[in-house]
Amino acid sequence: MEINLNKHISGQFNVELEQIRNDVLKMGGLVEQQLTNALNAVNNFDHDLAKQVLENDIHVNKMEVKIDEACTRIIAKRQPAASDLRLVLAIIKTITDLERIGDEAERIARVALESFNKAQQEFLVSMDNMGRKATTMLHDVLDAFARMDVDAAFEVHQSDKALDKEYEGITRQLMTYMMEDPRSIPKVMDVLWSVRSLERIGDRCQNISEYIIYFVKGKDVRHTSEDDIKENVL
Amino acid sequence: MEINLNKHISGQFNVELEQIRNDVLKMGGLVEQQLTNALNAVNNFDHDLAKQVLENDIHVNKMEVKIDEACTRIIAKRQPAASDLRLVLAIIKTITDLERIGDEAERIARVALESFNKAQQEFLVSMDNMGRKATTMLHDVLDAFARMDVDAAFEVHQSDKALDKEYEGITRQLMTYMMEDPRSIPKVMDVLWSVRSLERIGDRCQNISEYIIYFVKGKDVRHTSEDDIKENVL
Repeated sequence: MEINLNKHISGQFNVELEQIRNDVLKMGGLVEQQLTNALNAVNNFDHDLAKQVLENDIHVNKMEVKIDEACTRIIAKRQPAASDLRLVLAIIKTITDLERIGDEAERIARVALESFNKAQQEFLVSMDNMGRKATTMLHDVLDAFARMDVDAAFEVHQSDKALDKEYEGITRQLMTYMMEDPRSIPKVMDVLWSVRSLERIGDRCQNISEYIIYFVKGKDVRHTSEDDIKENVL
Repeated sequence: MEINLNKHISGQFNVELEQIRNDVLKMGGLVEQQLTNALNAVNNFDHDLAKQVLENDIHVNKMEVKIDEACTRIIAKRQPAASDLRLVLAIIKTITDLERIGDEAERIARVALESFNKAQQEFLVSMDNMGRKATTMLHDVLDAFARMDVDAAFEVHQSDKALDKEYEGITRQLMTYMMEDPRSIPKVMDVLWSVRSLERIGDRCQNISEYIIYFVKGKDVRHTSEDDIKENVL
C-alpha cells in the first residue's frame, strides 16, 4: 500500500491518512487489550481487572468519535476519490465494529464480577477456549488491516465458521447443564450471554475483513458467499 | 430541511440527495414490514409468513449495498461539505443499522417455524407486547428521519429505557419458567434469543436517532448522556 499512499501530490494529505490509519491500529490495540483483559478477569475471577475493563471502555468510545471526526474532516477538506475515499469509508465502518467489540468485552468483564461454584467454573474453561479463538481473529484482522492484506483478511473471514461451531457446541453443553441443575440457570445464563458476545465478536471481525477487501479490491463483498469472494474478487 | 436542500447551485445534486433519502425511507419501510411480519408469524404460528421474511431479507441487503454505493458516488462526484456531507455520512450509518434490524427480524421469524405447547405460548404473548414497542420505535425513528425532526428523534432515544425494562422483566419471567420446567429450556431459549433481538432493535433505533441529531445539529452525540443531549445539543 505504501506506493499507493505516496502517490498523492499533497504530502500533507499523506500524513493525515497515515495518522488516521495509525489511530485505527491504536484503537484496535486497545480493544484487543480490553478483550484479553476481560477474558483473563473471568478466568481468574479477578475483580480488579474486570473493573479496569469497565472503566477503560470510555477510551475506546472516545477514540471512535475522534477518528470519525478526523475522517469527516479529511473528506470535507481533501475531497478524496477512488482508493483514498474507499480507505476513509472503510475506516469509518471499521471503527464502528471495533467500538462494538469493546462493548462486548465490557459485557464479558461483568461476568467476572459474579461468583461461580466448582461445577459452574467448568464452563468458564470452555468459554476461555472460545475466547482465545475470538481474540486470535481480532488480532489477525487488525494485522491484515495494518498491511491491507486481502488474503489474510479472507482467512479471518473463513475462520469464523470454526468459532460458530464452537459456539453451538458450548451452547448445547450449557443447555444440558441447565436442564440437569435448574438452580444454576441464572448463573449459566450469564455465561451463555458471554459466549454469545464472543460469537458476535467473530461476526464483527468478519465485517472488518470485508472492509479490507472493499478497500483493496474496490468491491463490496458484504452478503457475498465465500466461494464467490474467492472466485471473483481475490 | 427543504429550504436547506434547495440551496444547492446544482439542481442535479439536489435530485440525487433526494433520491438517496427516498431510498433510505423505502429500505426502512421494508425493514419495518419484515419486523411486523416476523412478529405476526410468531404470534399466529404462520410458517408461510415466516418463510417469506427469510426470503425477503436479501432485498434488504441489496438495498443496503445499493444505497451505500450511491453515497460513495455522491461523495466522489459532488464533494459535499458541511450539512450535505453530514447527511451522506448519517445515511451510510443508518442503513447499516437498518440492515442489522432486518437480520434480527429474520432471527425472530425462525422462532415461528418451531412448535410450542400451550404454556410456552404464553411467553410468545409477552414477547408480542415487547415486539409492538420495538416496532413503534422503528416506525417513529423512520418518521423522524423523513422529517429530520430532532425532537422526535430524541423521544425515540428516550423510549428505549422502557423497552429495556420490559426486556429485563420478560427475561426474569422466562428464567423462572425454565427453573420450574427444565424440559422446556431449549424452547424457552429460542424465545429468549428473540426477546434479546427486540432489545437490540431498540438500541439500533437509538443509533439512528443519534445520526439524525448529528445531521441536524452537527454534533456527534454517541456515548453522550440524555441529560447532556437535552441541555447542550437540542
